[in-house]
Amino acid sequence: MKKLLQNTLTNIIPISKEFEEKAQKHLDNLTKPKGSLGQLEDVAKRLYCIQGGQSTLRVDPAQMFTVAADHGIASENVSPYPQEVTRQMVHNFLSQGAAINVLCKQNNISLSVVDAGCVGGGFPAHAQLIDKRLGEGTKNFAREAAMSRELCIQALEHGIELAHEAAENDFACIGIGEMGITNTTSATALFCAYCKLDPKLIAGPGTGASPALIAHKAKVIESAFTLHTPTLQKGDAIDILATLGGFEIAVMTGIALGAAEKKCILMVDGFISTAAFVAAYALCPAVQDYTFFSHISAEPGYTHVLHALEKQGLRPAPLLQLQMRLGEGTGAALAIPLVRAAANIFNDMATFDSASVSGEL
Amino acid sequence: MKKLLQNTLTNIIPISKEFEEKAQKHLDNLTKPKGSLGQLEDVAKRLYCIQGGQSTLRVDPAQMFTVAADHGIASENVSPYPQEVTRQMVHNFLSQGAAINVLCKQNNISLSVVDAGCVGGGFPAHAQLIDKRLGEGTKNFAREAAMSRELCIQALEHGIELAHEAAENDFACIGIGEMGITNTTSATALFCAYCKLDPKLIAGPGTGASPALIAHKAKVIESAFTLHTPTLQKGDAIDILATLGGFEIAVMTGIALGAAEKKCILMVDGFISTAAFVAAYALCPAVQDYTFFSHISAEPGYTHVLHALEKQGLRPAPLLQLQMRLGEGTGAALAIPLVRAAANIFNDMATFDSASVSGEL
Repeated sequence: MKKLLQNTLTNIIPISKEFEEKAQKHLDNLTKPKGSLGQLEDVAKRLYCIQGGQSTLRVDPAQMFTVAADHGIASENVSPYPQEVTRQMVHNFLSQGAAINVLCKQNNISLSVVDAGCVGGGFPAHAQLIDKRLGEGTKNFAREAAMSRELCIQALEHGIELAHEAAENDFACIGIGEMGITNTTSATALFCAYCKLDPKLIAGPGTGASPALIAHKAKVIESAFTLHTPTLQKGDAIDILATLGGFEIAVMTGIALGAAEKKCILMVDGFISTAAFVAAYALCPAVQDYTFFSHISAEPGYTHVLHALEKQGLRPAPLLQLQMRLGEGTGAALAIPLVRAAANIFNDMATFDSASVSGEL
Repeated sequence: MKKLLQNTLTNIIPISKEFEEKAQKHLDNLTKPKGSLGQLEDVAKRLYCIQGGQSTLRVDPAQMFTVAADHGIASENVSPYPQEVTRQMVHNFLSQGAAINVLCKQNNISLSVVDAGCVGGGFPAHAQLIDKRLGEGTKNFAREAAMSRELCIQALEHGIELAHEAAENDFACIGIGEMGITNTTSATALFCAYCKLDPKLIAGPGTGASPALIAHKAKVIESAFTLHTPTLQKGDAIDILATLGGFEIAVMTGIALGAAEKKCILMVDGFISTAAFVAAYALCPAVQDYTFFSHISAEPGYTHVLHALEKQGLRPAPLLQLQMRLGEGTGAALAIPLVRAAANIFNDMATFDSASVSGEL
């Protein structure tokens, strides 16, 4: 393992719960019935712990990384869309035409598009484009490991660097999203490997696969699991990611780790971004303390993943449930304003005393 | 019935479904898998129908009305908070110290506070305050009708006027929220009367009532139902509202009607605002076409109310579920940005053709 990754894993520390009680006391003094702002109060409490008891919570500026890459598993015909859509959508991101552009603009979130390895070579320079290419897409994991362990560590370190730069540029909140044709297949394989879930249970339509295609996806994953049995049985978190992951997923895993190290708020998008989180969690469980889940993806396997995480003691508590299944970071871009709302409530509301409002009888 | 209310009820027309197909076609041309933006696409479709097929959907500017009043039913000791909190909270709204202030400020929503009849006389003039006082709170509906039919019609017309003024001032979206100690008791009674629900099922903690207090609330409502049996059996929508409602609820009902008449987007807040919607729906079912439900209130009875509305053929589909139960319009203020997101997606995304992105294989 290289130094940057090693250091990051060492530097991530769980949040200190000592601040939780203090935050609760403050929230209970605000002019509202106790607990009446529900999940926003839970978010505010965690922000206070993440930010070490600073009296003013901070969410802005916020940065979205939409990471794109291609997948060798596309040769197994697991998506209704052709692979070139990954590259076309990167162009669309850079032309401001995609959903993530619209939502980041609306919600005042800075958007960077990361090329982690789209087929067809690099892109022309663009202010929003970051070149972190790791190759011309991954290998087909139905036949061999998607990438080498070395390349996987490089991808993780690319992500860590992105998070470090964001933190240096004063970003308090980092969102992760992605684009990569067939990456629901890779994400499904990762969920099954890390959380011991059945591919038949987790494989879903992704961008719109038919029931027959979904069954094919599950079979492709099952036969890959047979091929990679020795690696999967060993259970090393990096080797699992290298074997079944994608470049964009590994980079997002690195971003998650780097964000937690720098005490940034991490906002996870949907199905594929959550697979990146699960890999990060396998490498360092404390990353959960800095992570918020933006929404319950409409991908049917997602609820099983959430249950599996709950069984491991996590409380993902996604903020939205809008039957979305687009990726790109769109769910994260919609949820960041809710985290801002939690911070603003904490920062700006009057207390019962200051507003001369009577408390409970 | 007076002329203004009569005209409004006549003028509200159901949205024309002819636009739905056109909106769907546009959404399916945008650079995303079909339906992948889930509920946002449903919202965009309805906005297109509400706005009569205008090519650019409009949500802004947005106006929030937080309507406050006191309730005679407070003498039955159905809340853990003293009645003077209604007045104190109006002062807090005008001093920018409440949750609704923080959320309207964050989300660029214009906030007006409407005094519909708080105990203790009018408030000093303030740019955000609108005087629509109907008296020193309602009567105790456990002993007599909360207000006369005439006063109820006046309250409805006050609300209609507020919506008309907002529409004249170019507001495209109107949110309704409220403040009124013990108004969960009034709202519960209204749900039970309009939707034929059992008070024991719908009565809940409100601002934080104990189980004993909740049981007491249900009993107070049951005995009021015995007292008002003739009125309730007649089933006239205005008489039900006059008998069991509150001034702020009746004003919100009027706002809902006026908003629908003027083809404004209506964003309903939580438990009490939904009771105002239910009264408006009883007066004119087409109001549903203009209405969005912001969130699933944590008040336990709310899910029963949603089921009852679904049984009547409505599809409330609240946008958020954050275990909130504050009122004031806070849920509505959080949901308006999601409606904006739907409009922006519809207005600003590139199409497959314009962005040269390949469609499904």
